[in-house]
Amino acid sequence: MKIGVVHGPNLNLLGKREPDLYGRETLEELDEAIVELGRTLSASVTCFQGNGEGDLVDHLQRTAPEVEGFIINAGAYTHTSIAIRDALLGVEKPFVEVHLSNVHAREPFRHHSYLSDRAVGVVVGFGRDSYFLGLRGLVDFLHRRKP
Amino acid sequence: MKIGVVHGPNLNLLGKREPDLYGRETLEELDEAIVELGRTLSASVTCFQGNGEGDLVDHLQRTAPEVEGFIINAGAYTHTSIAIRDALLGVEKPFVEVHLSNVHAREPFRHHSYLSDRAVGVVVGFGRDSYFLGLRGLVDFLHRRKP
Amino acid sequence: MKIGVVHGPNLNLLGKREPDLYGRETLEELDEAIVELGRTLSASVTCFQGNGEGDLVDHLQRTAPEVEGFIINAGAYTHTSIAIRDALLGVEKPFVEVHLSNVHAREPFRHHSYLSDRAVGVVVGFGRDSYFLGLRGLVDFLHRRKP
Amino acid sequence: MKIGVVHGPNLNLLGKREPDLYGRETLEELDEAIVELGRTLSASVTCFQGNGEGDLVDHLQRTAPEVEGFIINAGAYTHTSIAIRDALLGVEKPFVEVHLSNVHAREPFRHHSYLSDRAVGVVVGFGRDSYFLGLRGLVDFLHRRKP
Amino acid sequence: MKIGVVHGPNLNLLGKREPDLYGRETLEELDEAIVELGRTLSASVTCFQGNGEGDLVDHLQRTAPEVEGFIINAGAYTHTSIAIRDALLGVEKPFVEVHLSNVHAREPFRHHSYLSDRAVGVVVGFGRDSYFLGLRGLVDFLHRRKP
Amino acid sequence: MKIGVVHGPNLNLLGKREPDLYGRETLEELDEAIVELGRTLSASVTCFQGNGEGDLVDHLQRTAPEVEGFIINAGAYTHTSIAIRDALLGVEKPFVEVHLSNVHAREPFRHHSYLSDRAVGVVVGFGRDSYFLGLRGLVDFLHRRKP
Amino acid sequence: MKIGVVHGPNLNLLGKREPDLYGRETLEELDEAIVELGRTLSASVTCFQGNGEGDLVDHLQRTAPEVEGFIINAGAYTHTSIAIRDALLGVEKPFVEVHLSNVHAREPFRHHSYLSDRAVGVVVGFGRDSYFLGLRGLVDFLHRRKP
Amino acid sequence: MKIGVVHGPNLNLLGKREPDLYGRETLEELDEAIVELGRTLSASVTCFQGNGEGDLVDHLQRTAPEVEGFIINAGAYTHTSIAIRDALLGVEKPFVEVHLSNVHAREPFRHHSYLSDRAVGVVVGFGRDSYFLGLRGLVDFLHRRKP
Amino acid sequence: MKIGVVHGPNLNLLGKREPDLYGRETLEELDEAIVELGRTLSASVTCFQGNGEGDLVDHLQRTAPEVEGFIINAGAYTHTSIAIRDALLGVEKPFVEVHLSNVHAREPFRHHSYLSDRAVGVVVGFGRDSYFLGLRGLVDFLHRRKP
Amino acid sequence: MKIGVVHGPNLNLLGKREPDLYGRETLEELDEAIVELGRTLSASVTCFQGNGEGDLVDHLQRTAPEVEGFIINAGAYTHTSIAIRDALLGVEKPFVEVHLSNVHAREPFRHHSYLSDRAVGVVVGFGRDSYFLGLRGLVDFLHRRKP
Amino acid sequence: MKIGVVHGPNLNLLGKREPDLYGRETLEELDEAIVELGRTLSASVTCFQGNGEGDLVDHLQRTAPEVEGFIINAGAYTHTSIAIRDALLGVEKPFVEVHLSNVHAREPFRHHSYLSDRAVGVVVGFGRDSYFLGLRGLVDFLHRRKP
Amino acid sequence: MKIGVVHGPNLNLLGKREPDLYGRETLEELDEAIVELGRTLSASVTCFQGNGEGDLVDHLQRTAPEVEGFIINAGAYTHTSIAIRDALLGVEKPFVEVHLSNVHAREPFRHHSYLSDRAVGVVVGFGRDSYFLGLRGLVDFLHRRKP
Repeated sequence: MKIGVVHGPNLNLLGKREPDLYGRETLEELDEAIVELGRTLSASVTCFQGNGEGDLVDHLQRTAPEVEGFIINAGAYTHTSIAIRDALLGVEKPFVEVHLSNVHAREPFRHHSYLSDRAVGVVVGFGRDSYFLGLRGLVDFLHRRKP
Repeated sequence: MKIGVVHGPNLNLLGKREPDLYGRETLEELDEAIVELGRTLSASVTCFQGNGEGDLVDHLQRTAPEVEGFIINAGAYTHTSIAIRDALLGVEKPFVEVHLSNVHAREPFRHHSYLSDRAVGVVVGFGRDSYFLGLRGLVDFLHRRKP
Repeated sequence: MKIGVVHGPNLNLLGKREPDLYGRETLEELDEAIVELGRTLSASVTCFQGNGEGDLVDHLQRTAPEVEGFIINAGAYTHTSIAIRDALLGVEKPFVEVHLSNVHAREPFRHHSYLSDRAVGVVVGFGRDSYFLGLRGLVDFLHRRKP
Repeated sequence: MKIGVVHGPNLNLLGKREPDLYGRETLEELDEAIVELGRTLSASVTCFQGNGEGDLVDHLQRTAPEVEGFIINAGAYTHTSIAIRDALLGVEKPFVEVHLSNVHAREPFRHHSYLSDRAVGVVVGFGRDSYFLGLRGLVDFLHRRKP
Repeated sequence: MKIGVVHGPNLNLLGKREPDLYGRETLEELDEAIVELGRTLSASVTCFQGNGEGDLVDHLQRTAPEVEGFIINAGAYTHTSIAIRDALLGVEKPFVEVHLSNVHAREPFRHHSYLSDRAVGVVVGFGRDSYFLGLRGLVDFLHRRKP
Repeated sequence: MKIGVVHGPNLNLLGKREPDLYGRETLEELDEAIVELGRTLSASVTCFQGNGEGDLVDHLQRTAPEVEGFIINAGAYTHTSIAIRDALLGVEKPFVEVHLSNVHAREPFRHHSYLSDRAVGVVVGFGRDSYFLGLRGLVDFLHRRKP
Repeated sequence: MKIGVVHGPNLNLLGKREPDLYGRETLEELDEAIVELGRTLSASVTCFQGNGEGDLVDHLQRTAPEVEGFIINAGAYTHTSIAIRDALLGVEKPFVEVHLSNVHAREPFRHHSYLSDRAVGVVVGFGRDSYFLGLRGLVDFLHRRKP
Repeated sequence: MKIGVVHGPNLNLLGKREPDLYGRETLEELDEAIVELGRTLSASVTCFQGNGEGDLVDHLQRTAPEVEGFIINAGAYTHTSIAIRDALLGVEKPFVEVHLSNVHAREPFRHHSYLSDRAVGVVVGFGRDSYFLGLRGLVDFLHRRKP
Repeated sequence: MKIGVVHGPNLNLLGKREPDLYGRETLEELDEAIVELGRTLSASVTCFQGNGEGDLVDHLQRTAPEVEGFIINAGAYTHTSIAIRDALLGVEKPFVEVHLSNVHAREPFRHHSYLSDRAVGVVVGFGRDSYFLGLRGLVDFLHRRKP
Repeated sequence: MKIGVVHGPNLNLLGKREPDLYGRETLEELDEAIVELGRTLSASVTCFQGNGEGDLVDHLQRTAPEVEGFIINAGAYTHTSIAIRDALLGVEKPFVEVHLSNVHAREPFRHHSYLSDRAVGVVVGFGRDSYFLGLRGLVDFLHRRKP
Repeated sequence: MKIGVVHGPNLNLLGKREPDLYGRETLEELDEAIVELGRTLSASVTCFQGNGEGDLVDHLQRTAPEVEGFIINAGAYTHTSIAIRDALLGVEKPFVEVHLSNVHAREPFRHHSYLSDRAVGVVVGFGRDSYFLGLRGLVDFLHRRKP
Repeated sequence: MKIGVVHGPNLNLLGKREPDLYGRETLEELDEAIVELGRTLSASVTCFQGNGEGDLVDHLQRTAPEVEGFIINAGAYTHTSIAIRDALLGVEKPFVEVHLSNVHAREPFRHHSYLSDRAVGVVVGFGRDSYFLGLRGLVDFLHRRKP
């Protein structure tokens, strides 16, 4: 089972920016931990980060044929990008939406997501655990769907 | 570590109503599975279901002193009850909000929650897995908080 | 044919409060008249009144297996209760929504109903006749559905 | 007792258009059934259908002096015509608003009515029965008003 | 100088309906008084009333070439008709909007007019005087425009 | 019959500012013309202009006992002052609201008036004629009210 | 293949009103050109113009059995008429919505259409070409639908 | 003179929860102080607290015949319960609305009250003093009403 | 302890205008009663009334250094004046907001206050008692704050 | 005559994604057909697709000097990109907006376009024909503009 | 070159109120610094502060003939005063709007300005520098306009 | 002191597009003037322009470690990009927002900025001077912050 993890804009600053809010772990360290958890769940995980809306669309289109589903933290694009929504729907792969922080406790413009209504599920607010829980949820979802 | 799981109105119909949407597992079976997972995570879990807003407030107040946190699926009260929000804040225990179905894909009046902005985290749309993921997330959160 | 009639909060004050608006007939007298009309339509009617949202949910769940449909005047909960909506949908019985007064002629917050879009039909404004017309409508609907 | 039944735009298509939604009975057959029910209620009923807003206003003004009340299904004009509202108020006759389909379960622009707040009562969603229930309701209302 | 006076739906009920609100003078009597005032202002006035939106559009188109301006009380269509607005703009004649009652003191849906922003001026709330004042205003406006 | 004319903020600029919009006549000249028209209508008119909201409130309170009604062009305060509304209601004198320009054709914040719903009538858009028409309307209104 | 072209209110003023906006070609000339283009596309086109909402409903109902689809420029009724929407849906014929001017560049109340979401397609802003493009689009659509 | 004091959901946590916000006095201590003040004002006060919306409705209905008015702090139900509003109106007793904290300084959903517009008066933000001031206000109100 | 009482626009009409709504006591009489109550509470009270927004700002700035807090009934400026809010915040004195009538039962534009969220507390609807209750509340608040 | 065709994000999936909605023709095949139609209309057409908002802005700026107009299907950016609007306005070339599907029949966030009000015209809902009709419309528009 | 600087309500508290937010410099000191900067820019600057809306209108009207432009910090009136907007437009002098604090980071009611859309430019958030930057910007603007 | 100037989409068209609105100076010329002014203020300025949202995010992240603050004119992204807001906050450098044109005088969708509430200050409407004033403001801000 192959799964793609996609990080949106500014997540490459992880561990560097606003450590009170996001912790001190870097994105590379987080990716390693996700891949490691994937291994224990028998899933091969590859990770990608991009700051450009079009880059994320490109990546989703290019890698979709090789994966069974996506974990996506679209960052700021969660709230502004219909193009990423369309890419996810266009490639016809199930996806789980995750967020590090509790978006519902932040500015009102972060309360709406263009992805949630088409996601398998959504996990928000658990810090790095959001990815781990999302990965578990997606793996179980994919197993349930199988014959 | 003790954790309280709270199910809101109509969740006692689980496995009986709308199986397409909610599956055929009953609430009792789900509770057993949650308790079982709790055990593997070294957490003692007790479950409660109530149809009345006041009953849920009473329950939260009464059991709060004995638990370290709550998993709550407030069902329809998620969208209408400030009293349950106040109870959760008043007892000053961390809580995780979960939903079986993807509320963002349903009627607009299910898109707003009176609980989310004060929750540790939120998990929606994974069916019974929402509880399991929420429990994992809460247990990890409680561990991180400890000295 | 068995039918449940459900009265929401404050309807037990009928005949006592605001007689200009609601008339002088008590709820007991109204219930007798409904049961009597049921008899002439070959329907066995039982009536219930509750002031608690959870009590109404409990009642709907408990009695649903014994009836073929409900007549419901949810009173104030019409405008605030998603839990009662969920109970009615969860028990999968057809229901007719009735109101004594013309809710459209009252405060704006009484113009929206959480029940109407899923009701067989809605009858408002005819005073006690709303129940009688609703009962006729439901009985005919149930007959039409039968083979 | 004389009562006028008024059908708004496109109701002449009844039985011809969208039979899944509106059934196969034509407007002529429905009118006959309404007149027949009127007879059993000792009410003389006359029916009219018009596609023009002005035609409906004209009809209401012209026939009002001869009737004691109206049953009106204003169709699409329910949601857009203040002129018909004004005509009904101007002729100072009580009226009952009816709809074949459950308008609350259709497009949002069908949820508001320019007539409801001034109607004796409103009946929606019972198919042809909406007219029959509305007629019963109006006849009873007119009897109650009499000395 | 020729001027057209146009009355919208239900104004033919004037003097018959709701006398508390609109007085006891009939439309014919009002028209005579308007024509008479026109005479004292050296303006030849012709009056028209129609209940149909299309009839009013037809009338405006047909009579526009013969008049220098219109006084229009579009009644209910004031608030719902873009077609009448388009007719008034299409025929390229100045017009004054008048209302018998104070529309700002009535239902909220009477507070917006599709005509006001393109009118020479608006006169509301003076009863029959609204027409007389509007006529004076239009005649003066037409005089000012002349070389 | 005594009538007070009240001009709000910036109307003292009349004839000086934006002549395309407001003409070249000064406020003094306009006041003379209004007083003159008053004379022909057997009404003694006194005029006042003030730039301060409180000054206008003071003036209305102070002069109300001596007049039978007011003509008021509250200028910008039309859209922002509840205090002037309260003064007009508090002194319990009928008033007519007038505007030189067509407020409905200007910025959206000029479309709402805090005065209109309590005015005898409203006249807008006729330039200086708005005052003359308003004065005629008020004088006729006061005559009609008299025994 | 037979196609009906329907022009709404005030389009009979074409070539006469506001030539800057709509050009100098009359409706008759436009209709001839449309019929001519129809001929080259092997489609027999008949045209109709009406100022009344009810007249347009009548026309659509009456001619629908003879045509395979409609081109409709409902003019002002585009934005206010649910009755015409209902007629188009009731007769169950595909239709294309066209507009001469770019409605999106005009007043906000012209930005919403009661027809667009149920149309085969929409063409706006090309002047007379809007009809020609709409006709081509409808003819192609009808061909594609055929066996 | 008998007066009922009603405390809504979570007020039983008083003195226990969020002491920064609500102080350290328990509800029992507060009730004693209110009863004591009642005594000095010659009013016999009885107090009740309930977490259930229906329980509060029941209580208001049951005790209304014995009291001359209510002091109510409906807590979270202030903002969500039409049923409690209906109970207060149904029993036809004057009531004063009080709040410990300044609801206007908290979340937006606490700014609207379903009770205020029908209350004798409202007192918010004075901590425990809100009850004392409300009681004084109600007692004076009841005295003024008496012959 | 010194306290300033500030009355906003039109309150000088008290006892003269709308006696049904505001009673027959004049502002002078009310001020005497407030000062008298102040004396019994060991507070020296001075009163001021102004119709101008700027006058009220001036007064608050000028007198603030001499008082420990304000009672303010800003009248109409409650709903429109950010300048008075800024003055109250700028002088950094606690204040209590009072209203004679129940603003929540009046026009919607009286439901919002620019002062409430920064007030110690708010008292509305008790007539002249609103001032007395507000004064008691402020005095107690100031005592509690003292060492 | 040279014309640029611009396809926005995810249109490169054409023929691959959601064939029920968009058909089985690939973007390359569509482009060929457009170029071919261009040839019959004596227009030299070049096509471009990009997933990035900035890439589309770059492309429009770079190619604008060489073309007389654009056909643009901005896909998801239609609803979110002011930058593309600014690019189209900045390069001062006429453009036609096209959409394959009927955007008015899809999610509400697809009903608004940042391009329409500045387009020559808009064509939506005809599938691949939308491009062909748009191209015809643009070519005719460019011919009409020429001397 | 002569320039008028206008400070709105409560700015006379500068240096006295809320020093964290506004600094410790008084208005007199600020005015001196502005005049000094004016001198280095060859502009003669005069300053005025007023708490009354009408006083500011008076001042603008009175001094406009002597200056070539205004720097205005209307304080709270920025958000509520159409009268000041009208005065600025009426005197037909260019003006620059400035604010000490960053109004976009404060309460939502400070986000809208009645002046900005007609200002030469707007400078917010730089503390006292806002005036200096605004003065530089206005002086440059006036120079550019000159022949 | 090092400062980064960032220009958003389409600003590379400066001097080429819409010269009436933006002048004839190119971006290169503007950049030179900004750098020159920087020199006189002892600040080393580097400039960047990008059309892609992601490119701007990349640039801000990459250059942030080398600068003490940013001047940013995000162009169209001002109104649509949360990603750029997040980048600016993430890199934790103070920034000043500038705009050439007066955004408040343009389309409503340009009135909201995702950057303003977190900016040091905002300068709009002064043409090229906006950058110069913004640079002065930022340099002064950075000096004030220093020990």
